[in-house]
Amino acid sequence: MNKEEALSFLKAYEEKTNAYHLALSTMSFDMATIAPKDGADYRIKMMSILEGEYLTYSTDPENMKRIEAMADMELDELSAKAVKQHLMQLKEIRMIPKDVYMDYQELLGKSNVLWEECKKNSDWEGYKKMLADVITATRSYTDYYRGNLSCYDALLDRNEPGMNIEKYDAFFKNIKDRLLPFIKKVQAADQIDTSVLKQHYPQEDQEKVMEDLKKFMNFDPNRCYMGVSVHPFTSPFSLKDVRLTTAYRENALTSSIFSIIHEYGHAQYMLHVDEKLEGSILAGNMSNGMHESQSRLLENFIARTKAFWSCNYETLKNRFPQQLKNVSIDEFVLMINASSASFIRTEADELTYPLHILIRYELEKQLFNGEVDFEHLDQLWADKYEEYLGIRPQNAAEGILQDVHWPQGLFGYFPTYALGTAYAAQFYQAMCRDIDVEAALTNNEFSKITDWLTKNIHQYGSSKNADELLRDVCHQEFDSNIYIDYLIKKYTQLYNLD
Amino acid sequence: MNKEEALSFLKAYEEKTNAYHLALSTMSFDMATIAPKDGADYRIKMMSILEGEYLTYSTDPENMKRIEAMADMELDELSAKAVKQHLMQLKEIRMIPKDVYMDYQELLGKSNVLWEECKKNSDWEGYKKMLADVITATRSYTDYYRGNLSCYDALLDRNEPGMNIEKYDAFFKNIKDRLLPFIKKVQAADQIDTSVLKQHYPQEDQEKVMEDLKKFMNFDPNRCYMGVSVHPFTSPFSLKDVRLTTAYRENALTSSIFSIIHEYGHAQYMLHVDEKLEGSILAGNMSNGMHESQSRLLENFIARTKAFWSCNYETLKNRFPQQLKNVSIDEFVLMINASSASFIRTEADELTYPLHILIRYELEKQLFNGEVDFEHLDQLWADKYEEYLGIRPQNAAEGILQDVHWPQGLFGYFPTYALGTAYAAQFYQAMCRDIDVEAALTNNEFSKITDWLTKNIHQYGSSKNADELLRDVCHQEFDSNIYIDYLIKKYTQLYNLD
Repeated sequence: MNKEEALSFLKAYEEKTNAYHLALSTMSFDMATIAPKDGADYRIKMMSILEGEYLTYSTDPENMKRIEAMADMELDELSAKAVKQHLMQLKEIRMIPKDVYMDYQELLGKSNVLWEECKKNSDWEGYKKMLADVITATRSYTDYYRGNLSCYDALLDRNEPGMNIEKYDAFFKNIKDRLLPFIKKVQAADQIDTSVLKQHYPQEDQEKVMEDLKKFMNFDPNRCYMGVSVHPFTSPFSLKDVRLTTAYRENALTSSIFSIIHEYGHAQYMLHVDEKLEGSILAGNMSNGMHESQSRLLENFIARTKAFWSCNYETLKNRFPQQLKNVSIDEFVLMINASSASFIRTEADELTYPLHILIRYELEKQLFNGEVDFEHLDQLWADKYEEYLGIRPQNAAEGILQDVHWPQGLFGYFPTYALGTAYAAQFYQAMCRDIDVEAALTNNEFSKITDWLTKNIHQYGSSKNADELLRDVCHQEFDSNIYIDYLIKKYTQLYNLD
Repeated sequence: MNKEEALSFLKAYEEKTNAYHLALSTMSFDMATIAPKDGADYRIKMMSILEGEYLTYSTDPENMKRIEAMADMELDELSAKAVKQHLMQLKEIRMIPKDVYMDYQELLGKSNVLWEECKKNSDWEGYKKMLADVITATRSYTDYYRGNLSCYDALLDRNEPGMNIEKYDAFFKNIKDRLLPFIKKVQAADQIDTSVLKQHYPQEDQEKVMEDLKKFMNFDPNRCYMGVSVHPFTSPFSLKDVRLTTAYRENALTSSIFSIIHEYGHAQYMLHVDEKLEGSILAGNMSNGMHESQSRLLENFIARTKAFWSCNYETLKNRFPQQLKNVSIDEFVLMINASSASFIRTEADELTYPLHILIRYELEKQLFNGEVDFEHLDQLWADKYEEYLGIRPQNAAEGILQDVHWPQGLFGYFPTYALGTAYAAQFYQAMCRDIDVEAALTNNEFSKITDWLTKNIHQYGSSKNADELLRDVCHQEFDSNIYIDYLIKKYTQLYNLD
């Protein structure tokens, strides 16, 4: 195989694996948004068969040999990176027997369906056994490829290459040491009344708000589609087709607003990758943390500012003239930044958010160390909320069943939300050095922000990793203190703690 | 391979081919309903790759050998039928080289996208070359498998096994001989004023009407999903998951109503197949004519009656109190049955409908005999409308570009609409002998009709063909006079022609 043959093989290989990915993404998106319930069993079975076909092709020994051979060739920089990433991704699934792989996918599919049902009914007892099965299966599955890593280290590495318990422990220790006592100070200060945001906000009016915000953020319907699902998510179909979802809560105005801005942050990352990477693994996801850095940056650092709302608040107020009658923009911005202990992670304020992640991280560690009393996991969950946030969930829907991740076997994912937010703090600092973010927002020039992100981050897809981006864009290493400093400074001002 | 091994092979074979089918159906449905436009090229390319994978697996020589071997085994009746149908279906694609197959699928995908755009702009010139390419490619494609049949005979047989030009010529001759002169009589009689139906009917109110009708017809959202697309269609995902679509026209009340009832007729056929056939080819489509018999039966023989509207008209009127203020149920039923020459097939009245099909049938014959002046196909189309219906379309959107079939390579499909309606006339006659259809409808017992269809037709899936069903259910052979008699009798009364 000469270089030319190798590159042409790689193209064909990527096209075929992409075809399977696109089919499975489409089926998953369909299932999460509109698919009739009774078809779930059959659909999940069919999806597991396709997963099996994908596995067979992508880990075919002949294909593996060729990809390995390419690792030793002198290729152009991008091709070399692509080969490296393929080998990194394949490291896991090439070790899994096909039947184990298919059974695991089918289990996760069923688990997801059962979770949706049990979450609706806040039925932990009904879901408990399934979660135990998912954890057992995840453990066996991980055994095939984890090598010398512990199971949980392997899961952490899978979501954020290079991360492990040791590094996350250090990260979360900093959060515990510096943020926990600060949060207690905030909780002791005068509280911000947010009851205005908890009035009745009819879904059809919220949908109109979404249209307004999409317009402000240059949402392109020829490239993006937004649906509704139980748990909001973003799914990349291609560089010109990204799907995102939201969920509406009529008694919480900002729930869907910030959730869709979050998802749009993910979507933009995908839509702005350089077109020359279309079809290559380099157009895909480098790490969940890097992806979260983009969604969390938009959701918090951008969209919770007065500058963001200066073009949007009047429009919002016109959608809800009764509910927001006596609320000024300053009051509104104060409310959307109010910190208060709450149960639902996706709706948590910026300050307490990392504690929601800390809780999940600590539980995951215990789950995979086998240290946990699984029978009472929901109570352990509640205990942790009580310990860190001073509140105790009264049911599983606002407690252990709230997130889609565990039901889908996504262990080791949660920590990337906090890590990604910390990356975001560094990127945001750099962005503010380069451009006048506030002016861009108040002048209705959202594209200036997008352009900065595209130029510095998005265009590269996964061809640069988190370390490289921090170095190239921020000229510094990862430093969680930048994130913590930002939060402490912001909330000191908001709560007049000086 | 003993019998047991053979059956277990067949199960695995069907599961894997079904997995590809489901993936491709999901992607097609997604593309026709919500997919962002700019992702089309990439998506179509990926779909053609999956089509290629499906081809490779389903026509794999080892698999073929096994299926052929099963044809000689003594199997249970259903397995034997399944084997026979597989061989019948594979007859076509096993002869096609993979690259030809994939290129053809990609061409059809692109053609469909271009058609949507050109239809919107009524741009025949923009689409013409693509249609020529599709016809040329269809001709070459058909050459691979048609054997001694002419190209068009092969296409007719593909859509309705056993049908050919000779038989359709006889069928359409009867329609021309008996219906054409009758339609002239109707056109000369006093006309029914339908302007009421052409007022402004806002889509959001039409959507509520759809909810009312779905309730009346026992539409089960756990098994059915309804979307919106340019051209309404139904897509079976599994026996417990069927998708249908409609299109709304705000200046035509009955357009979406009858279109969705039509699609629901297709959907029911799929939803009521005996569960023991799930996953088998026997759960699938026997012929397009048989499928159309079910949609056309519901749309016309059931839903255009006063009995159908006796439970639904008040509700409809309440949705449009202004528009329908002075319209009694009798006047409404008269209007929805009014016959008048019109351009759009899917909205044609029951009486002139077969002429829309006749026109397409005659053009298709010419297209595949090479007799047609392709450059002026749109004018030939218009000429035929003038000849048979006395009206001339003024643009391509209401003329040659109106239907999705040709852009999708579905030549030989149209005739099955007329044939299927003729089947429907025979089934309806049998249904009326067995149960009191009028009473079922007026008593809000739609399930009695569904039950009859399930028991006599739907449950068998494709394990009985049209001939067998006509014999078993109607105790007679196919006879197009039953259809024509029904129309003449109905419209003689409606237009007081006695």
